[in-house]
Amino acid sequence: MAAARALLLLLLAALGPAAAVWPQPLRQLSPPAAARCPLPPGRFRFSYAAGSAVGPGCAVLDEAFQRYRALIFGAARPAESKQPWRKPCSELSVLVSTPGCDGFPSLDSNESYKLHISRDSLLLYADAVWGALRGEVCLVTELSYYVNETEIVDFPRFPHRGLLLDTSRHYLPLKAILQTLDVMAYNKLNVFHWHIVDDPSFPYESFTFPELSKQGAFNAMTHVYTASDVQAVVEYARLRGIRVIAEFDTPGHTCPGGAPDLLTPCYLGKDPSGTYGPINPILNSTYQFVTSLFQEVGAVFPDYFLHLGGDEVDFTCWKSNPQIRAFMEEMGFGEDYTKLESFYIQRLLDIVSSLGKGYMVWQEVFDNGAKVRPDTIIHVWKNSLPYKEEMANVTKAGYRALLSAPWYLNRISYGQDWMAAYQVEPLDFTGSPEQKDLVIGGEACMWGEYVDVTNLAPRLWPRAGAVAERLWSNATVRNLQDAYVRLASFRCELLRRGVQAQPLFIGYCDHEFDWF
Amino acid sequence: MAAARALLLLLLAALGPAAAVWPQPLRQLSPPAAARCPLPPGRFRFSYAAGSAVGPGCAVLDEAFQRYRALIFGAARPAESKQPWRKPCSELSVLVSTPGCDGFPSLDSNESYKLHISRDSLLLYADAVWGALRGEVCLVTELSYYVNETEIVDFPRFPHRGLLLDTSRHYLPLKAILQTLDVMAYNKLNVFHWHIVDDPSFPYESFTFPELSKQGAFNAMTHVYTASDVQAVVEYARLRGIRVIAEFDTPGHTCPGGAPDLLTPCYLGKDPSGTYGPINPILNSTYQFVTSLFQEVGAVFPDYFLHLGGDEVDFTCWKSNPQIRAFMEEMGFGEDYTKLESFYIQRLLDIVSSLGKGYMVWQEVFDNGAKVRPDTIIHVWKNSLPYKEEMANVTKAGYRALLSAPWYLNRISYGQDWMAAYQVEPLDFTGSPEQKDLVIGGEACMWGEYVDVTNLAPRLWPRAGAVAERLWSNATVRNLQDAYVRLASFRCELLRRGVQAQPLFIGYCDHEFDWF
Repeated sequence: MAAARALLLLLLAALGPAAAVWPQPLRQLSPPAAARCPLPPGRFRFSYAAGSAVGPGCAVLDEAFQRYRALIFGAARPAESKQPWRKPCSELSVLVSTPGCDGFPSLDSNESYKLHISRDSLLLYADAVWGALRGEVCLVTELSYYVNETEIVDFPRFPHRGLLLDTSRHYLPLKAILQTLDVMAYNKLNVFHWHIVDDPSFPYESFTFPELSKQGAFNAMTHVYTASDVQAVVEYARLRGIRVIAEFDTPGHTCPGGAPDLLTPCYLGKDPSGTYGPINPILNSTYQFVTSLFQEVGAVFPDYFLHLGGDEVDFTCWKSNPQIRAFMEEMGFGEDYTKLESFYIQRLLDIVSSLGKGYMVWQEVFDNGAKVRPDTIIHVWKNSLPYKEEMANVTKAGYRALLSAPWYLNRISYGQDWMAAYQVEPLDFTGSPEQKDLVIGGEACMWGEYVDVTNLAPRLWPRAGAVAERLWSNATVRNLQDAYVRLASFRCELLRRGVQAQPLFIGYCDHEFDWF
Repeated sequence: MAAARALLLLLLAALGPAAAVWPQPLRQLSPPAAARCPLPPGRFRFSYAAGSAVGPGCAVLDEAFQRYRALIFGAARPAESKQPWRKPCSELSVLVSTPGCDGFPSLDSNESYKLHISRDSLLLYADAVWGALRGEVCLVTELSYYVNETEIVDFPRFPHRGLLLDTSRHYLPLKAILQTLDVMAYNKLNVFHWHIVDDPSFPYESFTFPELSKQGAFNAMTHVYTASDVQAVVEYARLRGIRVIAEFDTPGHTCPGGAPDLLTPCYLGKDPSGTYGPINPILNSTYQFVTSLFQEVGAVFPDYFLHLGGDEVDFTCWKSNPQIRAFMEEMGFGEDYTKLESFYIQRLLDIVSSLGKGYMVWQEVFDNGAKVRPDTIIHVWKNSLPYKEEMANVTKAGYRALLSAPWYLNRISYGQDWMAAYQVEPLDFTGSPEQKDLVIGGEACMWGEYVDVTNLAPRLWPRAGAVAERLWSNATVRNLQDAYVRLASFRCELLRRGVQAQPLFIGYCDHEFDWF
């Protein structure tokens, strides 16, 4: 989606080169006295350049053209400009060199683009449609619309730039997810990590196991994601160059009430206590269930990767259960329940692997020594051991690493906490260049204990933008004062687009958020 | 406004006695098997009981009847109840014993009420209209509407239960203020402390000194409060039994740019540095200005009290200025700039006093030994000295104390921080019963450094509700588990009323917030 991203950038260029481009492009050159080129609202059009490998009918770009047009000119018809007439920039031509429009973005997608704005032409070059999406929307001034003469060459530093939303601790309505995808696109974030189910609720409506959401959703009518909801999210994301990676976390965060046969009955002394713990790893039926569920999930979520969770398994219940204890002895696991956990995880990984899917797992799976495939992505989230050590360990073992530990944005604090997120350097750990190459990026996480649709947007934006720039822009882009100015300006632009993004600090925007 | 408050309570009673009544009433009795009485949407009416000292034409109650009717039944016309028919509670009669409808609520207003719901009648007794407003709105169930047989006797523990909003660090649109007043009323909060101006911006449009907002507002067209805005706020608040106390903070937090003649020119060595500090206390023109400004402000804001600020005066600029230093010497103040501060404050207090107004001040005015009138309210906000000591000192000196120190709700932290606010006990300091009697209440503060219209509502609600119950309900009402259940339920009710109140913890509401 390089092409569509760049469209967005074109528009932002109208703010002036350094003003509100967020995340900062790799290279942007503007002549000292850059000419300003008026965009004529009535006549302005997007077009495919001669020689482009994609053309009309390419939904990813056709729809991006419409969205960006609306973002530039808004709904209102502006009055004619009273500025002295200059040759208007009435057309942006897009040239994509590699064909392909109907696929999904992937970890390997090429997101680079080049944007050339001069007196005579507006040109956008991208290797693939995904790069064309990696631009940013410009400031729309009051009555007339300009772009500044400029040249931008840009591509991302890391290929995996994600955001985790948690729809189990609180349900998030479909529209909130779609709006989040929009704002992710403005921030050039390209992976929506959907932590869709967990202990508190199971809103995913499975067609193989309808009981899971019937029993496990907060409300099986109103607090669920139907097949068509999921499809809508996946397609909406695709059109914005965003991958959707679903997480079905086992054995620890699973299936509230929906499938008690799967869960371990906990014991109090010699008798079952009536409560249930993690998935029961000693039953064949567990693995039949897991196979069927992931077969479905793998089909519904087209991304190559699934996130399999594997974090925070509480062993108390397993320890209380006599059958489990007998199994431990039989297997020679002694008292080491991480071995039982790994036993389960191992079978799960093999199942998912046999379905032709790759997987991501939380770091415990690696820490506990499960044998994972070489292409596994280890998701680093814990702060108990300093995360830099974990990054070193994971990459030293030859696995790809994804960083979230310093980016738990749900953990709010007073003041400008975006700065701490911004100052993180993902490659700042002890390791060889080869190890650094194994860091594929990171994810901002918005866990849902204290977040639902009432506070999601202001808590996410613009704070998640700090992570977005860290993952997109060059490592040298880290001046806090400069970032403050650009992020505050970008946040005003988000307000103008109807995003309920909270302020960084004292001040105001010309367009404040309009919530009425 | 006892009568209208009680109306609200009536409605909440439908949830079941202990479910969602927030803040908890003084005494609520329900028979063990309380009868439920259907409210017939089509025919239900409010009326004035025979013998009531106020009747039709009393705007405070007439308008409350309309609001509460809408809150009970919503916009939709429900289908006829299929429950077996019982005599419906088709009328709520209100009996107010003291006349008076057109005045403003005050520190001395009587807010007590008694609500009696039986099979045969719904009766609300209140001494004054203000008590009638101190009820709470009931749960509206899906298709049919009930109230439970119950008897409520209620009055507030403290007469001053406030909320501070700061419209200088960020501008808050009029509608956001009005909505906040609505939710304050739901929480039985009765003082809107309007920190209307400060260093960052001066949005108050003064007719005596129009330059103040022309120069000092973020935007003199869009980011100001006109005379009619202020009037709208004052009347909207009055109809909900809420006082509006405006704060014009001097000498420290004053007049950004609007009136440089008033401010102290700071020096760098022997020359003026071009910057300005606090109000210049050595010029007669300063006191002429202050007199004119407070004359206007005193008329625009009808409450007896004005908040005069007086906090956080930075002496650096005063110290740099040679005229100020000469004045210090002349007055024999030595190097003690708190004496200069008190000199200014003393004249300010005398001016406001001569205008027939009472005043509240931040604690520094007391700490620095200014001579204040005996009826002054000292606003305790600092945590440097433990606030309990300050409460003891202020009341020992015979002044009335208002507590905010533990209730700076803008200072967010991760998790359920409403609990800390809830567990505060305002009278928990060393002092005689007479000293305790001098505590008139407290205020939750939402300073605006990081808050504007995008995050105001979720940050305020339901967290400010914790302060509201602490100030309204009996000191013995402090069980956290019970409060959690009621506050979570109350928050769901706020969502139903369109308030963007954030969740306390994991879970859901039948009516989630609808923001589309």
